[in-house]
Amino acid sequence: MCQLLGMNCNKPASISFSFEGFSRRGGQTDEHSDGWGIAFFEDRACHLIVDDKSSVASPLAEQIKRNPVKSCNVVAHIRKATQGPVALENSHPFKRELWGRSWVFAHNGHLKHYAPTLSGAFRPVGATDSERAFCFLMQGLHARFGDQAPSLDALHAALQALTNEIAAHGVFNFMLSNGEVLFAHCSTHLHYVTRQYPFTKAHLVDCELSIDFNEHNHLDDCITIIATKPLTSNENWVAFAPGELKMFQNGVVCLDGPRQVREFAVAC
Amino acid sequence: MCQLLGMNCNKPASISFSFEGFSRRGGQTDEHSDGWGIAFFEDRACHLIVDDKSSVASPLAEQIKRNPVKSCNVVAHIRKATQGPVALENSHPFKRELWGRSWVFAHNGHLKHYAPTLSGAFRPVGATDSERAFCFLMQGLHARFGDQAPSLDALHAALQALTNEIAAHGVFNFMLSNGEVLFAHCSTHLHYVTRQYPFTKAHLVDCELSIDFNEHNHLDDCITIIATKPLTSNENWVAFAPGELKMFQNGVVCLDGPRQVREFAVAC
Repeated sequence: MCQLLGMNCNKPASISFSFEGFSRRGGQTDEHSDGWGIAFFEDRACHLIVDDKSSVASPLAEQIKRNPVKSCNVVAHIRKATQGPVALENSHPFKRELWGRSWVFAHNGHLKHYAPTLSGAFRPVGATDSERAFCFLMQGLHARFGDQAPSLDALHAALQALTNEIAAHGVFNFMLSNGEVLFAHCSTHLHYVTRQYPFTKAHLVDCELSIDFNEHNHLDDCITIIATKPLTSNENWVAFAPGELKMFQNGVVCLDGPRQVREFAVAC
Repeated sequence: MCQLLGMNCNKPASISFSFEGFSRRGGQTDEHSDGWGIAFFEDRACHLIVDDKSSVASPLAEQIKRNPVKSCNVVAHIRKATQGPVALENSHPFKRELWGRSWVFAHNGHLKHYAPTLSGAFRPVGATDSERAFCFLMQGLHARFGDQAPSLDALHAALQALTNEIAAHGVFNFMLSNGEVLFAHCSTHLHYVTRQYPFTKAHLVDCELSIDFNEHNHLDDCITIIATKPLTSNENWVAFAPGELKMFQNGVVCLDGPRQVREFAVAC
């Protein structure tokens, strides 16, 4: 399995502190050493960095810690290969374009015998179940809404239906962002914490590093961090319920999905 | 206008020497300081790095020179903004996926009043004529061949026809690669040089740097460098004829296009 990290904020913020702890799990405090990647948006533009090395040993990861970029939407991933060999094209996040926006996707889980029919524009480059699922989501959205992006409500509902179809094949924790909103879906393990006034101090569980958010944030900052497992020991991380598809915008949850979608998916 | 740099080889090679001279044109020996970018393939995987800083001032460009990656297909670009503001999403190369491969594209030129009708999967993220043209090429290939990639001959013929349509709107020098082949089209200025046994010494025109390729290459290496203007002073750079669409594979030209396509395009 892999691990996921995401960030959604109301103003561009640095993910350096969270990434510091998260990246230790890529071979130091945990076993996810088969590649890593991070995508962050600057307005509409999306930077994507992927690597088939472990995040602990990667010079690129070191550079991100040293030169933090501020962003409102970040999706990061460390890989423990289950399907597809250790290779650059199998490293998450994956990126595609739809409706004049870049979309990035990262997956934690395992989909069994998952081989959807995919069209030319949304076919995987690598050999993972994850990229196949992402292509299925993008293709499904394009098929439902044609050439015009829908409202966020309609987008959430469509993603919920497509996610149900995929989740029937196995464990499908994922994060998906188009730079405007960030979707997070939980099959098994996913947690989030929202940092806003009054800010507290936080201590990473993966290394000896603490931060006092009072010293780094403004009163109106609102930042949500989402991760497979909580990254800090003294904050109130909220566990997603299995089946939830949450949509984050401006640092807060703005739409929740149903909690028990597996039965629904099977009933379809 | 902008400038283009490409490389196509029979075995993965480093573009460091050529990039050293090319990147000087991004604000030092020339005026192309509104962003830069480079895409290089490692097998099927594609690394894309873009920046809205000048290549002379960019820490990312410095890192590429210090940590050269070997690749069989590279497309690079330095930007002098004509359409679209200086912004990350307007920096070339652009990337899209089609038929299970990544495609990268960079453009030098200017297309007047160019606003093709584009579908959801191939709509631009930024505001350049260049990304619109790239989306039109990808959409046109998908429309012609559906979900299966065609032969390289058919691909070249289709690209020639689509290129003719676009080139009727203005200057359309471009490079396009899917990691297997590299296409280069000339409207006005484009040159290439093929380096193979017997290798020579080369001297960059943009800085005091020489290299003896005998010391770096094997007898069977075959490397073609393509650039808007010749990068070295003592090699036999071949000028493209206006209208030529060349397809490079394994370091050599394997298909040429017609030289006078503008008339043909207008006749259509």
